[in-house]
Amino acid sequence: MEYLTNDKLVIVGAAGMIGSNMAQTALMMHLTPNICLYDPYAPALEGVAEELRHCAFEGANITFTSDVKDALTGADYIVNSGGAARKAGMTREDLLKGNAQIAEQFGKDVRQYCPGVKHIVVVFNPADITGLITLIYSGLKPSQVTTLAALDSTRLQSELSKYLHLPAAEIVNCRTYGGHGEQMAVFASTTEINGKPLNTIIGTEKLPMEDWEELKLRVIQGGKNIIDLRGRSSFQSPAYLSIEMIAAAMGGKPFRWPAGVYVNNDKFSHIMMAMETSITKDGVKVMPIKGTPAEDQELEKSYAHLCALRDEVIGMGVLPAIDKWHDLNKNIH
Amino acid sequence: MEYLTNDKLVIVGAAGMIGSNMAQTALMMHLTPNICLYDPYAPALEGVAEELRHCAFEGANITFTSDVKDALTGADYIVNSGGAARKAGMTREDLLKGNAQIAEQFGKDVRQYCPGVKHIVVVFNPADITGLITLIYSGLKPSQVTTLAALDSTRLQSELSKYLHLPAAEIVNCRTYGGHGEQMAVFASTTEINGKPLNTIIGTEKLPMEDWEELKLRVIQGGKNIIDLRGRSSFQSPAYLSIEMIAAAMGGKPFRWPAGVYVNNDKFSHIMMAMETSITKDGVKVMPIKGTPAEDQELEKSYAHLCALRDEVIGMGVLPAIDKWHDLNKNIH
Repeated sequence: MEYLTNDKLVIVGAAGMIGSNMAQTALMMHLTPNICLYDPYAPALEGVAEELRHCAFEGANITFTSDVKDALTGADYIVNSGGAARKAGMTREDLLKGNAQIAEQFGKDVRQYCPGVKHIVVVFNPADITGLITLIYSGLKPSQVTTLAALDSTRLQSELSKYLHLPAAEIVNCRTYGGHGEQMAVFASTTEINGKPLNTIIGTEKLPMEDWEELKLRVIQGGKNIIDLRGRSSFQSPAYLSIEMIAAAMGGKPFRWPAGVYVNNDKFSHIMMAMETSITKDGVKVMPIKGTPAEDQELEKSYAHLCALRDEVIGMGVLPAIDKWHDLNKNIH
Repeated sequence: MEYLTNDKLVIVGAAGMIGSNMAQTALMMHLTPNICLYDPYAPALEGVAEELRHCAFEGANITFTSDVKDALTGADYIVNSGGAARKAGMTREDLLKGNAQIAEQFGKDVRQYCPGVKHIVVVFNPADITGLITLIYSGLKPSQVTTLAALDSTRLQSELSKYLHLPAAEIVNCRTYGGHGEQMAVFASTTEINGKPLNTIIGTEKLPMEDWEELKLRVIQGGKNIIDLRGRSSFQSPAYLSIEMIAAAMGGKPFRWPAGVYVNNDKFSHIMMAMETSITKDGVKVMPIKGTPAEDQELEKSYAHLCALRDEVIGMGVLPAIDKWHDLNKNIH
């Protein structure tokens, strides 16, 4: 069996539904035979390892450990879905603080055990924030950390496909940037449907404004809808898309969707958010985007939301003030 | 995106953990873009369809329905994991009868809605029996129906790999035939470890007889062990392996493990059981196996167990007496 590389890929949170699917997906994509499963919850982790061994993937070398040092030592690539789920009685802030602290510890562990890691994809929510925290504490370069941010765009494609009764393949280049869900900025002008930009269709009889607003709401509630229908959180799509991201970082097929990336330019500063990117063996690069003035304004609003969330985490003491970031990570300016 | 075929693949039981993984696996293997998800439980089914659409598999044409006629009409290939799970208070017989009746209805549906189907893989337990019932009621040829029977063999490979501290790749051609779990017949003489047949290692200090018996027990309890560790039934490995089977039937990569197949020869008659097979576009063919006299005897014992189970289902009235099978299916002699 040919694999893309022999590099060590670590799946963090491998005992969970997303993590276990990631491991299977990575093996089926033949990314690398050397997959290390990590999760603090040892019994389920062993169960996942057993399942994967029973698949008998040719040439696979599957290891698992609940010792973070063992897991991360020698890691070349990491995909991390190891956040905590919301539990009964937890407020939004509790969840935010809990996952922010998990990301902080993860960043520190990366710095200590695998400073030579090539690329990390962060999946656990809120990924824009957990990815940012990971980046700052790990000491890695901004080009080495991305977050899963594609689901709003793929959900937009899916909803348009259903509404217009067209195959998804005919709805090209769906793009949302900035934050996730309610905070997303839809760049309808970038989407082409049978060669026509989506923004020229919105508000016509093909897609009346009211229907478009409802459609966007369905995109925003895409995750909630899965829970309502399936009785469990979405796991197949986040797993699959994040492994597509790490595949691109390994030098595989280019990733086709927006990714969360650290942005610090004249418009947006000290933030991680969904942007147009290119992910290659050299890491992630922010690519220019061109929207209508209204779309640009949406993105600025989305950015402002993310800044408020970031500042909340600074207020919690998980992240230091922005002017101290460089002290923690020399690659952050 | 290149697919192996454009034929319609129907996943029966697609709302479940095995079925939803099957659909993702088939799409990731690029078997066919035309995947139809069927499950009587509509909400979760829609949730699975949504998840798969959010993956944005290129060129995929995913449909879903809870109408069995819609699902099966035009089906070229079917993988069926749509059995019932054991519920509290259910006896083994209740479960057997329930799933036998589901298989009967499925066979009848195939005959009515897709008599032109090319191949069916049956996964739900006891697969030797549900596959047999499907075959008889569908009217298909024995070459067109197989059942998932590989897990005992892959679990044997996995357990040997762990015990001997060798990569799985160095444990070649693990084979169990006949029934599943406690009923399996291990053909240790067919397995090679560093060029040495496994049966010449058993009983030596490398693998003392007592350890071998314990190892076999771990193979038999492989499924139970997953439940204990993970808190849920095994789903990734049955899904993956059964899609490998249908891939072979579509003309893809040869399947590397034993499969459940209808056998009617001078030694074993009117039974479905794990055998050495070849699965190609022309269907499944039973291949000769050569064991030691002790292994042959094990297989005869396993066959006798399966005959008893088959006769139990005949006693329940789900299957008619063997001499009436030909009336139901002219391809059965």
